[in-house]
Formats: sequence, C-alpha cells, structure tokens
Amino acid sequence: MYKSEQLAHSIRQLIESGTLNAHEKLPSLRDQVQRSGFSLMTVMNAYQELESQGLIYSKEKSGYFVAEQIALKPLEQYSIVSLNSKIEINSLVFKYLKSIQHESVVPFGSAFPDSQLLAAPKLIQIMGQLARQRQSYDQTASLPPGNLALRKLIAQRYCMQGIQTDPDDIVITSGGLDALNLSLQAVAKPGDYILLQQTVFYGAWQAAERLGLKVITIPEHPQHGFDLEAFEQVIHTYPIKVCWLMLNSHNPIGFTVSDEIKYKIAKLLHEHQIYLIEDDVYEELYYGGQKPLSMKYFDQQNLVLHCSSFSKTLGAGFRVGWVYAGKFSDHIQHLQLMSTISVNALIQNALVEFLSHHHYEKHLRTLRLSLERYKKQFYHYLKQHLPAICEIYYYPSGYFLWVKLPHKLDSMQIYEELIQQDIGVAPSPLFSVLPAQQHYLRINCSFEWNEKIQAALDQVIKTIQQRVEASL
Amino acid sequence: MYKSEQLAHSIRQLIESGTLNAHEKLPSLRDQVQRSGFSLMTVMNAYQELESQGLIYSKEKSGYFVAEQIALKPLEQYSIVSLNSKIEINSLVFKYLKSIQHESVVPFGSAFPDSQLLAAPKLIQIMGQLARQRQSYDQTASLPPGNLALRKLIAQRYCMQGIQTDPDDIVITSGGLDALNLSLQAVAKPGDYILLQQTVFYGAWQAAERLGLKVITIPEHPQHGFDLEAFEQVIHTYPIKVCWLMLNSHNPIGFTVSDEIKYKIAKLLHEHQIYLIEDDVYEELYYGGQKPLSMKYFDQQNLVLHCSSFSKTLGAGFRVGWVYAGKFSDHIQHLQLMSTISVNALIQNALVEFLSHHHYEKHLRTLRLSLERYKKQFYHYLKQHLPAICEIYYYPSGYFLWVKLPHKLDSMQIYEELIQQDIGVAPSPLFSVLPAQQHYLRINCSFEWNEKIQAALDQVIKTIQQRVEASL
Repeated sequence: MYKSEQLAHSIRQLIESGTLNAHEKLPSLRDQVQRSGFSLMTVMNAYQELESQGLIYSKEKSGYFVAEQIALKPLEQYSIVSLNSKIEINSLVFKYLKSIQHESVVPFGSAFPDSQLLAAPKLIQIMGQLARQRQSYDQTASLPPGNLALRKLIAQRYCMQGIQTDPDDIVITSGGLDALNLSLQAVAKPGDYILLQQTVFYGAWQAAERLGLKVITIPEHPQHGFDLEAFEQVIHTYPIKVCWLMLNSHNPIGFTVSDEIKYKIAKLLHEHQIYLIEDDVYEELYYGGQKPLSMKYFDQQNLVLHCSSFSKTLGAGFRVGWVYAGKFSDHIQHLQLMSTISVNALIQNALVEFLSHHHYEKHLRTLRLSLERYKKQFYHYLKQHLPAICEIYYYPSGYFLWVKLPHKLDSMQIYEELIQQDIGVAPSPLFSVLPAQQHYLRINCSFEWNEKIQAALDQVIKTIQQRVEASL
Repeated sequence: MYKSEQLAHSIRQLIESGTLNAHEKLPSLRDQVQRSGFSLMTVMNAYQELESQGLIYSKEKSGYFVAEQIALKPLEQYSIVSLNSKIEINSLVFKYLKSIQHESVVPFGSAFPDSQLLAAPKLIQIMGQLARQRQSYDQTASLPPGNLALRKLIAQRYCMQGIQTDPDDIVITSGGLDALNLSLQAVAKPGDYILLQQTVFYGAWQAAERLGLKVITIPEHPQHGFDLEAFEQVIHTYPIKVCWLMLNSHNPIGFTVSDEIKYKIAKLLHEHQIYLIEDDVYEELYYGGQKPLSMKYFDQQNLVLHCSSFSKTLGAGFRVGWVYAGKFSDHIQHLQLMSTISVNALIQNALVEFLSHHHYEKHLRTLRLSLERYKKQFYHYLKQHLPAICEIYYYPSGYFLWVKLPHKLDSMQIYEELIQQDIGVAPSPLFSVLPAQQHYLRINCSFEWNEKIQAALDQVIKTIQQRVEASL
C-alpha cells in the first residue's frame, strides 16, 4: 500500500467507526503533515482519495470536512414464510433479459458492472500474448476440474482468508451461475426441499424449478438482512435438504450479513446437516478495507459449496467461475463432462498469468474505488431528485441501489415505460414472487457519471415522479 | 482450387467409382502432361497428393499404380430393439474420461482429433490481434442467441448446402454437446420416449437419463448403418417423441448413411411428427469431394434440430458449437440464460473474422487430407499386424477406426491393461449397453505417424494378440 493509501485508510476507519462525526473539520494539510510525519504530497493525495470516495468534502478557504455517512435503513418486513411448489418467474425473466440486451439500451437494469471497468489492461495484454501461442489452446490441461495452476491460485486466495483449501477442492466452471447450478444438482434431487431468501437472484428460483425442488422462502430481516429466527423456524418445520443463500452484497438488495449471524447460520446447518449453496459472486466488491467472510469460513463439515466467479470483476464475456466443491468435486466434474465438457483453455491460461503476478489485487483495488465513487454519485443524485416518498437502500459494497417506490406503484409498469425509451431498470417481480413486494427497482450504478448517464437517470426520475403524482 | 488439386480430384473420382481398378497402371507423368495439357509440375503435384492420400502407390522405375481401395465391411447384426428404463453407463464414462485425460496417456482413446491439426495458424493470428482489443471482450453482442455476424456466417454455410436458413434460426452454444443437450431439453420432458441408435455416443445416453426419458434403441444395419425397418417398427409400436441420431461419420463406428435412407427417415419423422436431435459434429470431416447431406436438408417441418460445432475442426478448447434451432430458438436461449448465460465473446469475434475470409475452407481442406492419410496409415498397419480374426471397420470420413475383437474378448479388460501402460483406447461398453457388444474398440487415428505412435500401436497390437492367444 502507498503511504497516502495508508493514511486515507486510517482516516476512513475513524469516519466509519463514528470517531469523526459528520461535518467535523479535518486537520488542515499543514497540521496533518506535522502530526503524521508524512509529506505534504502524501497528505494531499490521501485527502483527495477520501474526497473522491465521498467520505470528506472541501469548502473553499475553510478546508476539509467529514461528509455525512449514508445511513443504512431498515428494510420493510414481510414476515411470511412461504412454500412455493410452482414458480412462474421464468418467462418474465426471459422477456426481461432479452429486452435489456440491445446495445442501445442504457444498462441500469444489467446485472454486470460496466465492462469499461473490468477488462484490465494487463489481462488484455496477457491474453494478446498467449493468444498467439498454439499451446494456449490445448484442451487437455483445461478439462474438469480445470487448469491446475489456476486452481492453486484460487485455493491460495481461500487460504489467505483463513479457509484451508486444496487445489483439488476447486472446480473451474463456465461462470458463476454454472457453478451454482452444478452444485445444486450435485446435492439435491427432485422432490427435495430447498430454502431460499425471499428476495433472491432469479437464477436460484429457476434452478430450483428445473430440478423439481420444493421451495421454502424466508423473509429478509429489516436490520440484519438475514432473519435468523425465521430460518430456525423453517428448518425445524421442514426437512430442508439444501439452502441457496447470498449473504455478501446480496443481489438485488445489497446488504452484507454480519459474521455473528453467519456463524449462527453455520451452526444450525451443522446441527441439521443441511447443505448450503453459497452465492458469493460479489465477494470482492466490498468497500473499505475488510473483505467480508464467506460461509465457507465457518464450515467445519464440508456442507458449504462456495460459488464465485471472475465475471463481476474481470468481465462476464470470459465465462469463468468456480466452486469450492470439496468432496463433491467428482460429482460436479461428472456433470460437467455431460454438459459443457470444459472451460475455455486460453482464458484459464491467461488467468493463471494474471493472478500469479498480483495484477488482480491491483485491479480490484481500483475497481472497488470506482464502484464506490459511482454508486455514491448515483445515490446522492437520486436522493436529491426522487420524490421523498421513495426510499433508497445504500449498502457499502457492489454496484446496485435498491429503490423502494410507494406501495401502490407497480415496478413492472415503470420498467415497461422506461424500456420504451431504451432505458433498462430491474423491477422487483424478477426477484420475488410476493404480491406485496412488487414496488422496488434495482438500479445498476457502475457507470462513470457523464451527461448521457445523467440524462437517462433524469428519465428514470421523471417517470417515477409522474407515476407517484398519478397515484396520489 | 489449384490445377493440381483439380487433376487429383478427377483421378480420385475415377478410382472411387471403380473406373480405374486396383493395381492398374496410371498414365506416366509425360503421358498425363500430354493428355491433360497441364504442366509437368502440376501433374507431379497431383500424383504426389494422391499418393499421400493412399489412393495410388509408386514402384521404382515402373510408375504409379492404383492402390487397393479399402472395402467397406458389413457390421455384425444385433437384431434387438430394446427398451431401457435405467442406464448404468454414467460412472463408467466418468472413470474412463478421467483415466485418459492425463497428458502422459497416448490419446488413441480421445474423442478429439490431434490438437496439432486443429489450431489453424490464421485463427491464432486473428485471436492474437483481437485479444489485444478491449472491445473484443464485450459480452453484450455475445449473449444468446450469440454473435449476429457469426450466426450469419453459419447460416450461409447451411444455405450453400441448399438448406434455407436465417441467422435467427441459429443459436451459438458452449460446444456441440451443449447444443445437443439444450435441444433435447427444449423438445422432451420427463417420461417421454426417445429413440437412440444401439451403438451411440455416450452423451446421448447420459442426456436421456438426466431428463428421465424412456430409451428405445434400434440396431445398426450391417450394410446401411441405419436399420430403416427396425426404425419403422419402433415408431409404430412406441409413442416416440424424439430421436437423437448420428448419421454422418457415426461415432464410434464411422459409417455415413446414404441420402436415400435419410430421405426415408425424414418422411417417417414427418408422418409421425417426431423430433430429431441430429448430432452432426463430424459433418466437415468427409473424405473425397462431396459433403454428406444432413437430415436438416430433408426437413420440411422444423422437426430437426441440427447440432454441430467447431470443436472437431478448430479445437475443443474453444467450446463453441451451435444448433439450427428454428422455432425452438427462444426456448433454447431461455435455457442458456439459466445455465451458461453466453459463449465466450472473444472467441465468437475471432470466428467471425476467420470464417468471413475463407480461411476456414482452406483449413478444412488440409485437415481432411491429413486425417485421411493418418487413418489409412493406421488402418494398413493394424490390418497387417492384428490377428486375422479381428475385423477393422474403415469408413472414408472422420478419424476413428472401429475394431472388432473375437466375441470371447472383453474390450474393458484390454482398455484396463493398456491404460496401465499409459495408452488410451475406447472400449465398446462406453457406447452400448448390449452384453453381446462388449468386444469392440474405438481407436483415434488422427496422429501423424512417428516412432512414438508406432510403438504405442505396437503395444495395442501386442495386448490384443496376447488376449486372443489366451482365449484360443
């Protein structure tokens, strides 16, 4: 870490812990130099970084001040545990995905970060080099469980978080969704009970339906994201075979569940011998200094199949994910050899080169800072311009904002109105089958602010305003 | 075509049609020059090409002679139509695939041609160029149904064979097996009846099992490959919903079914409104001048889902296939968005570049010639050295030889003995569940002849010899 990053990091901690309060004045540059012993240049860089992250602001001739922290807001409570035997989400999802796929559509509805942020120049350089070499294409080394060197590097990343991992625990997959689907197939069979979060990435619903599983959902907890009480109640009532959960930077809402709750979930899984498919594809997109723990960290018994990918950090066009499969490795490889056979050889080779020289860490650092900056810009703009009756849920990770509209409004109608204007937004029926939960939008904020983005956001705001006024 | 290729092609036709007989003397170089009006160089090149294809041979000071044509042999007849509700092939296939996957294993058991033959230098050059450009990685254009320019080029190839095709009929998939699986999912549901060939690529068995289908198999016809009579009998007896057939360069046996029979199959499918999943991944690997027709050619009613890929011609490490999906396009895209999401963007872009400049045709021409040369070398060597009681089935396409051992022999034992010596061969239980059909081996002959290959083939021969002797 550079000295300026170190300094920025310490000040950030003081702000986030509440030691420094909103609108409190920071030491002047000169004072800070004296106190810290850093050079003026270092201090200036640190202040500028904090400013770009939206943590401090400057007033001309007065210096730097602590910005107001974006407060976490409680979610609405839907205290319903529900059993859904047949899910009707598929055709909606398909129609939606096709509608936002055209290049002309402003991608606020996309699940992927702006590709401008992802394709790291160093990775492109490596790809350019390897692509010219015939041996990069050889399939043999890329066959399931995937390139050994790549699995070693992924295993090392788990180890660095204190999760004991052998390269043979890892299976490389055709993206994160493939990892999740293969994992679910490996542990569940038709008729089994699966527990999902009520608001959930639609891929989970679809996978459950395709496998003929019985779906039980538990509601989100207003403060903690995950409702431990409902969870306990369900696993005492139903013979749950497997859970599919997203506890870090939840899609679409955005919350990250605390370590304490994760620990308790792990304990309950252990007691009831329930498998967990852990969707952790946003694991690297935390803001601040601390990577959140995964459920795999608390897993003593090989019950957790931890799934992640490079799609949200390096580019979805690569189609490379993985699962910490542990004892399910053979079963999952078996399923792969019956479907996609293997993951692209060239790209596995390029990732080996990219990951082994710490390029990935550098890339992630930049990516996180950009996402945080952009999301804050979106948040403040929406906060300022959306009708006050709308609630905006901001969490310090990822690149989604979750916007609550008045109950009477139908987010599908707003989506449809906006898509006519070539603007995509993701309406909540994509993520929930609850009739009471049809008035949310997920907005992708991973875009650098410019006139085009602002104009599109203005359209979103205008459309919502009109609907709100019409509903009054 | 070069002049020498033209000349070689005409002489080849004379040989294959039987106008020129085995061991008949060809006109001398000088005579040929006078007759044809081509230059001496052209004639020499043509003769050398024919010699390298094994169609003619030279005797010192006597000139060139027509080589003996490899006669097609009738297959053994297994006149059983069988209904299999539960298939036990999965764990065998997995064990097998894992065992041959190590780099140290001589790949006579592989399903893929030697990668040396595939990665076309021009494609590698294009990949090297595109890989350096950030926009090559953008996922948007690569999302289902896949890159439009690539679908146009594939559609053109169908049109050139007289099959009316729109780019929107095509869906790009993660390899050929993915195309086949997605197609089957789109037309069949659990409990449906599926008709398979008795000897069949194991992927078809596995797909049928995974979807909970009832499998009916029909035997191969000794002369024609496909048993039309058994087919008619079965579709009159069972409510077959879908067939999965391989009629061109059948894997593992190698035969190609005649146009006449294909026409009759199409007529029956039409009469009974049965869908066909057509596995045509070897369509480009015919020898001689004429590409065999696909069943899609005879399809008037959108009953045929024609599946193919670039894996057997450009490299399996790319993982790009496609299906002529027609009216099932939406359904198949839907399934993709729930599983692999999209096919690698960079490679789709590179294929566009490669296909639009006729590089593919040039590459295929060279590939076919090499495969024919190598397969003939393997055939003649095995013919000469294997015990006479073994039968070798040679067909003029692809890169497999199908070897029949004496009935008493168990091909699994031979496979196991050889894999101990790091030599792979594919035993028939991978391709058939009939107890009467356990004494065949599939041998991959796509390798340039050298000492290492010969030594490994000698090991195969020696192992078979020992087993044959022990069984007498």
